[in-house]
Amino acid sequence: MVDITVLFEPEGKKTKTLIGSTILQVAKQAGISIRSECGGKGVCGKCKVVVKRSEALSELTEVERRYLSEAEIEYGYRLACQARILGNITVLIPPESRLSFRKIQFAGIEVLVKPNPTVRKIHVILPQPTLSDAKPDYERLIDTLSNTIRIDDLNISYPILKTLSDKLRNSDFNITVTVWNNRQIISIEQGDTSNELFGLALDIGTSKMVGYLVNLSNGETLDIESVENPQLIYGEDVMTRITFAMAEPKNLEIMQKLIVTGVNEVLDRIYARTKIDLSKVYEVVVVGNTVMLHFLLGLQPKYVALSPFVPTVKRRMHFEARELGLNVNPSSIVTLLPVIGGFVGADAVADVLATRIHESDKPSLLVDIGTNTEVIVGDSKRLFSCSCASGPAFEGMHIKHGMKAVAGAIEKVSITPDLNIEYKTIGDTKPVGLCGSAMIDIVAEMFKHKIIDSQGRINSKQSSPRLRVNNGEIEFVIAWGRETATGKEITVTQRDVHEIQLAKAAIYAGSSILMKRRNVCAAELKKVLIAGALGNYVNPENAKILGLLPDVPEDKIKFVGNTAIVGAKMALISKDARRKADIISRKVHYVELSTDPSFKEEFLQAMLIPHRDLNKFPSVKKILQY
Amino acid sequence: MVDITVLFEPEGKKTKTLIGSTILQVAKQAGISIRSECGGKGVCGKCKVVVKRSEALSELTEVERRYLSEAEIEYGYRLACQARILGNITVLIPPESRLSFRKIQFAGIEVLVKPNPTVRKIHVILPQPTLSDAKPDYERLIDTLSNTIRIDDLNISYPILKTLSDKLRNSDFNITVTVWNNRQIISIEQGDTSNELFGLALDIGTSKMVGYLVNLSNGETLDIESVENPQLIYGEDVMTRITFAMAEPKNLEIMQKLIVTGVNEVLDRIYARTKIDLSKVYEVVVVGNTVMLHFLLGLQPKYVALSPFVPTVKRRMHFEARELGLNVNPSSIVTLLPVIGGFVGADAVADVLATRIHESDKPSLLVDIGTNTEVIVGDSKRLFSCSCASGPAFEGMHIKHGMKAVAGAIEKVSITPDLNIEYKTIGDTKPVGLCGSAMIDIVAEMFKHKIIDSQGRINSKQSSPRLRVNNGEIEFVIAWGRETATGKEITVTQRDVHEIQLAKAAIYAGSSILMKRRNVCAAELKKVLIAGALGNYVNPENAKILGLLPDVPEDKIKFVGNTAIVGAKMALISKDARRKADIISRKVHYVELSTDPSFKEEFLQAMLIPHRDLNKFPSVKKILQY
Repeated sequence: MVDITVLFEPEGKKTKTLIGSTILQVAKQAGISIRSECGGKGVCGKCKVVVKRSEALSELTEVERRYLSEAEIEYGYRLACQARILGNITVLIPPESRLSFRKIQFAGIEVLVKPNPTVRKIHVILPQPTLSDAKPDYERLIDTLSNTIRIDDLNISYPILKTLSDKLRNSDFNITVTVWNNRQIISIEQGDTSNELFGLALDIGTSKMVGYLVNLSNGETLDIESVENPQLIYGEDVMTRITFAMAEPKNLEIMQKLIVTGVNEVLDRIYARTKIDLSKVYEVVVVGNTVMLHFLLGLQPKYVALSPFVPTVKRRMHFEARELGLNVNPSSIVTLLPVIGGFVGADAVADVLATRIHESDKPSLLVDIGTNTEVIVGDSKRLFSCSCASGPAFEGMHIKHGMKAVAGAIEKVSITPDLNIEYKTIGDTKPVGLCGSAMIDIVAEMFKHKIIDSQGRINSKQSSPRLRVNNGEIEFVIAWGRETATGKEITVTQRDVHEIQLAKAAIYAGSSILMKRRNVCAAELKKVLIAGALGNYVNPENAKILGLLPDVPEDKIKFVGNTAIVGAKMALISKDARRKADIISRKVHYVELSTDPSFKEEFLQAMLIPHRDLNKFPSVKKILQY
Repeated sequence: MVDITVLFEPEGKKTKTLIGSTILQVAKQAGISIRSECGGKGVCGKCKVVVKRSEALSELTEVERRYLSEAEIEYGYRLACQARILGNITVLIPPESRLSFRKIQFAGIEVLVKPNPTVRKIHVILPQPTLSDAKPDYERLIDTLSNTIRIDDLNISYPILKTLSDKLRNSDFNITVTVWNNRQIISIEQGDTSNELFGLALDIGTSKMVGYLVNLSNGETLDIESVENPQLIYGEDVMTRITFAMAEPKNLEIMQKLIVTGVNEVLDRIYARTKIDLSKVYEVVVVGNTVMLHFLLGLQPKYVALSPFVPTVKRRMHFEARELGLNVNPSSIVTLLPVIGGFVGADAVADVLATRIHESDKPSLLVDIGTNTEVIVGDSKRLFSCSCASGPAFEGMHIKHGMKAVAGAIEKVSITPDLNIEYKTIGDTKPVGLCGSAMIDIVAEMFKHKIIDSQGRINSKQSSPRLRVNNGEIEFVIAWGRETATGKEITVTQRDVHEIQLAKAAIYAGSSILMKRRNVCAAELKKVLIAGALGNYVNPENAKILGLLPDVPEDKIKFVGNTAIVGAKMALISKDARRKADIISRKVHYVELSTDPSFKEEFLQAMLIPHRDLNKFPSVKKILQY
């Protein structure tokens, strides 16, 4: 029995395996995500990888010959589910195979919006000039357009003007004009291309960027793609990145370029899949927290981070794609939705837009969980918002066996009375690690079963083989090595529990302060909406037991997924929605937690599970007594 | 007596001279223009040149020590009027010394315009942000500006937004904002810079570009500069350049770059002289014929030149200086005044604006003489315009001893009854050649004295030593070699006379056709206005005898100089003037001469001196009979 070493690139991750394993199996064990929509059955052809040393692999199978082109085979492409490893190899996972079936939380809510986009296409056939009608080209165009739209303030983007005369004559004066907001001609195409009208909704998160390619004619989402924020190499959290960007002007440029690179990566992948001509993407609507929007524009973010926490600009802004370097039509308009204040950005505006809490006459609590968590409390009368530095624990970072909510992640956990564990993984594969929703379950269940106390301390006196000391730290085993994809135990450590407490305390304290500002108690909340990276499978009872959320009846708690991108899409396809976004940004009050005198006390009280004051959690109190 | 060779750079022109001449004397003889406002008296210090071989020159004079800095002396600077040549040398004429006292025809008319520029500066001190007032920077700025201007449609140029936050804090929130047209923030400067508000009026002619640097606060012209249009290397006339530009896309880019180079040369020279910070130039108003404006923008000009003669755009357009590459503030606005039609461009609009013929209830004739000559006839009711391919003869080109109206040019000529010549040169120096006004005098005087007949044929039977055959062509001597700066005769050849006939016939035919369209005869004209390169010293009687102008009383003929640049300046300093320009461009009808059935006949009749139909020139008839 020989141990073989497999190196995965571009991660640079090495792992050992046995002769005869498929590349896909080894990748899963190593926690490397390879796209595999059929789960390795050889019927989707998505798990393409490149291996240069073909002699270290089994021969090409029939399945591979079906899914790979001659050119691909010659270049060293294989299907990861088919190729079996016979010797030491290096596996390169090309970008197109990198998308795992990550759960993008778009199904969380469904909002009906009547498509009324800001860009429109108008197909026109102009009368051809003659000696008796030698009107200049632009005036000829404008006159014809005046039959369809208001032309008083209409301008033309300079690069489009440059090509106008030739384009008219090359097309026999039969053209399609793209107009943004009745104000700017951003494209002139030959013939009738009016059925090709696309836009991109974009959510730039601190750790992840998500893009929706949308058909603006009918509002349909054609494709979805997400990538890690490439700025991650300069730090997980916003403050580290700002510190880097502040150091010298060049660094700010680097940060801007990284964001643009990420957006273009989203676009590249969408193009690779859909083959939709990206020059037919005429508007990009962007949301993100205030700092991410500053980075996209190359604006100095330090004043957002330093007291008195002032962004450069609040309102909705428009730029040309060529100014920012986005790989769509260079004259397309990039629209940044307005921000609220401090770190609470256009993502929070989009959250409100999508959930419509600002239209209800009863107050709701909205929590958008991420590396920074935005909290909004209010109704049609008054709304308050804040940003909590919750950290990335709920996204699986800073947790020993934490991972994102991708294939192989344990997403649900329950502990039986005899301290055994039941769990479910995403994709129903062998487990690789723990995602955010699992961590909520685990800490809540451990507390219910008195494995931890209200301070989060693991009770070493509990008698269970799952409780053990490893490298001097006490931990609780969730999955035994024999069960997991890696062959190693998946555990939760004392430090992991503490990370979750810090995160949930920050979120709860923020919620609590805003509820006080709005003068509303838990019982008065109409809804508690949880948005963001946690996923659709969070157990609301456990979230309450943990003390992440105020104690409200479970039917009031709703996990709404990525409402930021939903709001961005709404503003992309509807002028009314973007006007609403403007109103929301002005209406929601911003509360700066770091200067709130009660924050520290609220935070410390919320560090306990569920809270120092159990009377705030009557239903949890009942469960515990039961 | 030793002959010495002097090489002038950057012209690369070599000339021979005698030991002991000053550099200025030699330069004048060679037709090289060196700035010399005192005429060589040693009291202006403007004639700085650089000579590296100092031993070949006389020693530094007291005058030179007064006007040259230590550094300049070390670098080889001398004053051309002081340094005497002792041996072979190379003289480099630096840009700052290149301005001869070329006659820029700005004094032709004087128009009073109340300064009301489109750009304005607003000095504001913003309240500094605090925790209780953490309004974002841009909104803080806009709120303060709202005390002064309407802010509904106000935008900010992206590069200015990028620097906003740092600039506010570096200046303690004490800044000066430059706003274009109440619509766009184009500059933010630290402290109070409201007294530095400059603009450039620019006339891009086929052969010459002229720029006025204007103080927008009071409308004062601070400096004037003109350069040759660098496109001249691709042909003197517009059609040759269009043919080149049509050949391939790269050529169009070349033509655009050359125009931009020329404009930047104007700016460089203005800066060298005035030291006014060009980043404080916030608007550039450009006029020029339609093709020059196409070239400036890089628009395809071929459709203007080919039937049915359609420009790309007619209306006033605005661009950012950085889009075009002009070396002023990158966010400045470059405003191109509207055109009329065909080749009749914004220069003609500016001509009308400056001369106000569109406001009079009686019709005038306006002729703007250049390589293309624009003709406009009309009044407040109806106006007609056309462009005549008059060629550059009146600018001294295609004429054997022709030259521009610069120092050394003969500008006035009369012939005595005994066929002797009296003449006057610009700068009262020895003559070097003949400028346009001299050519009008010469042909008219030759005709009066029957040296030529009405067909322009030189009468070889006249008995005068000035009439001679040279290289098989008959010519008439204007100045003998002993009188001239070059030592060579200055003559007018049979071919020169023919060139002048072609030019004047084109202009007269155009005028005649427009007068017919407007249904006005010569006697009904209120004024005949002559604009352009001819100069202020044209003899109106001779212009009539030549048949360049219709036969009107001399007090109706006015030489108005460069009205195009005057109109551009008016639009630069006054919003009202630019609105008038828009109205003029729509109001003036364009007449395409090349398709006018009567043009050929009109042209042939006008080839005669003054005209085939002498009844059209009653006063000339009288002079001839007298």
